Amino acid sequence: MPEVGIDAISFYVPSLYVHLQDLAEHRDIPFEKLSRGLGLEKMAIPDVNEDAASFAANALFSLIEDNNIDPNQIGRVYMGTESAVDGSKPTATYAVQAVETKLAGKWGERSFKNCDIVDLTFACVGAVDAMQNCIDWVKAGTKRKAVVIASDLSKYDLNSTGEYTQGAGAVAVLISESPSIISIGDTWGIGSNSVGDFFKPRRFYNKRELALALLKQSNADYSEGKIDSLIEEADSEFWQDGGEIIEVFREEPVFDGQYSNQCYSDRITEALEHFNEQISGSFLTESDYLVFHLPYAYHGRRIIFRNWLDWITSNGQIDNLISEIGPETEDRKSWERAAIKSEMYRQFVNKKIEMGERASSRIGNMYTASIFMSFLSLVRSCMENDIDLDGKNIGFISYGSGSKSKVFEGKMVSGWERKLASADIFDNLHRRIAIDVNLYEKLHRGVQEAPTHSNSSIVLQGIETENKNSKGLRRYS
Amino acid sequence: MPEVGIDAISFYVPSLYVHLQDLAEHRDIPFEKLSRGLGLEKMAIPDVNEDAASFAANALFSLIEDNNIDPNQIGRVYMGTESAVDGSKPTATYAVQAVETKLAGKWGERSFKNCDIVDLTFACVGAVDAMQNCIDWVKAGTKRKAVVIASDLSKYDLNSTGEYTQGAGAVAVLISESPSIISIGDTWGIGSNSVGDFFKPRRFYNKRELALALLKQSNADYSEGKIDSLIEEADSEFWQDGGEIIEVFREEPVFDGQYSNQCYSDRITEALEHFNEQISGSFLTESDYLVFHLPYAYHGRRIIFRNWLDWITSNGQIDNLISEIGPETEDRKSWERAAIKSEMYRQFVNKKIEMGERASSRIGNMYTASIFMSFLSLVRSCMENDIDLDGKNIGFISYGSGSKSKVFEGKMVSGWERKLASADIFDNLHRRIAIDVNLYEKLHRGVQEAPTHSNSSIVLQGIETENKNSKGLRRYS
Repeated sequence: MPEVGIDAISFYVPSLYVHLQDLAEHRDIPFEKLSRGLGLEKMAIPDVNEDAASFAANALFSLIEDNNIDPNQIGRVYMGTESAVDGSKPTATYAVQAVETKLAGKWGERSFKNCDIVDLTFACVGAVDAMQNCIDWVKAGTKRKAVVIASDLSKYDLNSTGEYTQGAGAVAVLISESPSIISIGDTWGIGSNSVGDFFKPRRFYNKRELALALLKQSNADYSEGKIDSLIEEADSEFWQDGGEIIEVFREEPVFDGQYSNQCYSDRITEALEHFNEQISGSFLTESDYLVFHLPYAYHGRRIIFRNWLDWITSNGQIDNLISEIGPETEDRKSWERAAIKSEMYRQFVNKKIEMGERASSRIGNMYTASIFMSFLSLVRSCMENDIDLDGKNIGFISYGSGSKSKVFEGKMVSGWERKLASADIFDNLHRRIAIDVNLYEKLHRGVQEAPTHSNSSIVLQGIETENKNSKGLRRYS
Repeated sequence: MPEVGIDAISFYVPSLYVHLQDLAEHRDIPFEKLSRGLGLEKMAIPDVNEDAASFAANALFSLIEDNNIDPNQIGRVYMGTESAVDGSKPTATYAVQAVETKLAGKWGERSFKNCDIVDLTFACVGAVDAMQNCIDWVKAGTKRKAVVIASDLSKYDLNSTGEYTQGAGAVAVLISESPSIISIGDTWGIGSNSVGDFFKPRRFYNKRELALALLKQSNADYSEGKIDSLIEEADSEFWQDGGEIIEVFREEPVFDGQYSNQCYSDRITEALEHFNEQISGSFLTESDYLVFHLPYAYHGRRIIFRNWLDWITSNGQIDNLISEIGPETEDRKSWERAAIKSEMYRQFVNKKIEMGERASSRIGNMYTASIFMSFLSLVRSCMENDIDLDGKNIGFISYGSGSKSKVFEGKMVSGWERKLASADIFDNLHRRIAIDVNLYEKLHRGVQEAPTHSNSSIVLQGIETENKNSKGLRRYS
């Protein structure tokens, strides 16, 4: 069996960001709580003409152009997203179409004609699922090439606790034999349990009740029969179309943050156990570096702490911790607080986790793309600091609410830096445009009409409004 | 490499149906047009407490129970659907949870603890994608077992042209080494092109405009400032929550039927070419039987006609057609009409396609599940008519709007009937309950409150409405 893994990597992050110092001031909370507590610095904000499809298109375009890939040779474009723009047509098709059109002069009109395209959905873990399947597919053939795209935007209510963790963007990776960057191992640890820690349900409303709620405040006649005739006569498809029930979609999830942290912790613990059973060894021992799904930058270092404690207990290193902070006391909680602040844990975090957090601090939560961005953050940080990753093991710890964790390992390939030159994430993040909270709020509420900023990227050009048979179809270019 | 394919198959079809004779009478169109023209007889209708998750749960439960599978041994549950109940949490997790709970006494509380679960979305082809990936995964290991579920409901506007083709239900298949029913080949033909022939976009509305449309019909004061304060004061989350823009989801797709037929035809032609290139042979020559994605029962026989014509032209059998209907004339269209009505084409359809249509006539469009149901229809028809399928090649022709076709082959395994005894689709369809058009319309419009019919299946028990942090979470049992 040949080695299979990531041969090239590319990304797209919106040009706009809000500095969390600004937001913290507006929300009247200490910035330190966000920066020191959660590792947050900036959050990426999509412009009015950006969405998960346009992010994906830009990441795919860069991947192809920067690495001079012939798209006719790409057998698959598999996308993980929980920000799909349609309930039936995969968001990946919109992305591929934009790229296919842009590349038509160079590679022909239908360069993705025989390409297998699909979306996978499992909250933030869907793109890891896409990658695992693409690896199996590449292994099952000869010289196959697959692209995996992770693309999302995370949106929370204004003034909510989730607001600071928002982010957006996409990462695309090329999966091939004899990969240039990292070869992915055959062992996958999985922890699954269906829970409702975070989800995006549709909200059901009765049309008559909606009308009534509004009319009751007014001086209008809202008697029994009157409401029905008002609805019937109202000049809007909203009131005219379909049945009595309106299903509203909101990008903002329903979630319970604390419970979701617990689910994340439980699932990764189960997935690590499942992994360790298969290798009769230890994931944490094998991993030189750890890469996480990061809802916020410091989430990984917080959530892995208990697993670290179990690990140093099982391998005898607990003695070093005890010599630093003393033996476990009856007050287990304060002992654990001391342990998480210990020099020993700090060194573990600094060596194995911190470099993978850097991009997240400046982007925010990218959902499916977060773990791939964490990997990019790690490898670009090592490149820039001349840290040799040849042959190093990277442990990947992914989580999707709902809930599932998948953990797996990769080994860095000698010469891994070569194909990373074009994926200069930190330089890109430096070149973004800061927007103020006022504009951010307009974008959030959907009342900003014109794009804030013109750029050369692929953007949403418009949504069909006239033709009845294609109303709602999105055009990108 | 061991043979891998379908080892067991199970299904769930709602207990309720509308006879299309009844609907045709209500819509004042000739039933013959539906029955003779499209092959339609009955359409399955979901009860108020049924959805894609409950269908899937029931199909999964039957698969496990009828075949005495230990769920702890199932490494994957991959689901194709375009009727997802959530934008982030996979519909498959809801289905697995219901089954896991129901089986807890027998197999333990967490029998799916290490199971990989995910949804795949590409209109009607997503479950074929799920199956291909599960086959690769089973091949990559030893003694692996995966379940693929296709689950959907197709809903079109009342009085629309799509109304007659509605349907619903799920099919679940067990994928394993040395399968009992059919072994799936390694060659997959793909045709892809991003088009908007059929999709499920969100509809965007401005809250103020919605209010205005309603208020304008009334005698209320709807002056500039007044509307905003009415909205602010209205006692409904609909008016209160989020920004100025409302995104409405509708199960009913936006589509262009004729254009979609053309896309289906174009994509399967491309996929067949792609397949034939790889085998340096002919899919149609190799296939003893053909199984299609069937938007309506006779869609396959209509859509494959041109490919059949090309095929008999290339293999010389065109002479037989010419002796039957005469040589091609200048009026190509009428000659083709004669060809499609020829005894030669009728025999091709009757031998290779018709048995796969039977279930579809009585259920309607099952979207992702349609092609799997077509396969079940074929094999159960052969069983009941003592037709020997040992070693026969089945050609699968799938299509998903948006658009992609995937074609592949399977070879029936000796003893294929054994595990099909429990999957008695035709008997099940006989035992359903006919509902009248009045009740059907109530169900369609969402105004029927209580379930129409009590049964022992897994159903949607409720949707959380109180707890803010889990509002919208669905409970099944």
